[in-house]
Amino acid sequence: MSAFPVTPRTKLKRAPQRGIFERPQVYQILDEALICHMGFSIDEQPYVIPTIHARVGDRLYIHGSAASRMLRHLKQGVQACVTVTLLDGLVLARSAFHHSMNYRSVVMLGTMEEVTDLEEKSEALDAIVEQVMKGRTQEARGANAKELKATSVLVMQLEEASAKVRTGGPIDDEEDYSLPIWAGVIPTVLQPSAPIPDSRLAQDIPLPNYVQSYLQNRGIA
Amino acid sequence: MSAFPVTPRTKLKRAPQRGIFERPQVYQILDEALICHMGFSIDEQPYVIPTIHARVGDRLYIHGSAASRMLRHLKQGVQACVTVTLLDGLVLARSAFHHSMNYRSVVMLGTMEEVTDLEEKSEALDAIVEQVMKGRTQEARGANAKELKATSVLVMQLEEASAKVRTGGPIDDEEDYSLPIWAGVIPTVLQPSAPIPDSRLAQDIPLPNYVQSYLQNRGIA
Repeated sequence: MSAFPVTPRTKLKRAPQRGIFERPQVYQILDEALICHMGFSIDEQPYVIPTIHARVGDRLYIHGSAASRMLRHLKQGVQACVTVTLLDGLVLARSAFHHSMNYRSVVMLGTMEEVTDLEEKSEALDAIVEQVMKGRTQEARGANAKELKATSVLVMQLEEASAKVRTGGPIDDEEDYSLPIWAGVIPTVLQPSAPIPDSRLAQDIPLPNYVQSYLQNRGIA
Repeated sequence: MSAFPVTPRTKLKRAPQRGIFERPQVYQILDEALICHMGFSIDEQPYVIPTIHARVGDRLYIHGSAASRMLRHLKQGVQACVTVTLLDGLVLARSAFHHSMNYRSVVMLGTMEEVTDLEEKSEALDAIVEQVMKGRTQEARGANAKELKATSVLVMQLEEASAKVRTGGPIDDEEDYSLPIWAGVIPTVLQPSAPIPDSRLAQDIPLPNYVQSYLQNRGIA
């Protein structure tokens, strides 16, 4: 898998050691994120809108109502930027100046186009549901013709992208290490908790195995 | 406190019941978020960059290196969009089509300008550190003249903004409620875990009370 090229638009001028262009590492961050922030401009006004995404190979998909202003604008092929960010920790330094966050982010530049091939559209919608909960497409009632028609799927071919990652503890100025101030990292993670069954769920329907596994893998019994 | 006006740019055309324009509710979401996504365009290419923010009254601050490309561009007064998103849960519906997320997001439109008043700049930087960890400015070594000079602070006067909130369980089509498929919500929260002291921290420096309170309020002993 080739790395993303370092372009003038994705090159990190500051803290270049935090930049990552290898596709496997970029995709790992992208795939872990549950939402992305989609950036586009209308009449010179930028908009940044959160939405669900899924990646298949080198293609990034989003979806929404066919009536959505955002999707109708994006599918004209305008320039877009899609960003995902995972927060990994609060970095408390001895000096206010060196406070920071640990994070992993991916910035993707390109254009969106509408997916009109029905097979690709269906696979993209499956990938989006799987992004929310792996295993879910095996059980959920699939989209019917009316729902497929009401939904637009857009794709960005991933050609220009980079990740930026900060890890580790605070980096203080040398003379500050002797200050009697606690310093360190408070890790953070997007943590699920016990599921809340739908109020109309029949009592004899158990929590599916794939949801149980998802929770167990995240420390929920 | 007056509500934000509903403008053609912030009015929700779809799911308008999810829109919120009252400042206290918008600010509660904004203040809970640890990062924002800053949107702006250069040469018709949108960029979406994660950064730390803090709000004081009706003013939203960001900061960064005075050499930052983003800040140098934004302070020219170009149109910007700042968005924060809090993920509250995965919504598993009986149909693939009705899968969703519970979330609270705020979209703010406007222009950024550089804060040149030194008192306001200092207060903004304090607010940003407090946004990372409440109480921290009482202890951390404050910025010196060199650090203040190396840092730019930008502000957006909050005049056009809206929040969008989804809560509650899945909303399925009536005929799908009888399907033998588990449905419900898996709540999610950005959860801190036990602090990792800096490797160079002297052993006799205890975890500060404000960090202990922060963790206890989030279920960490």
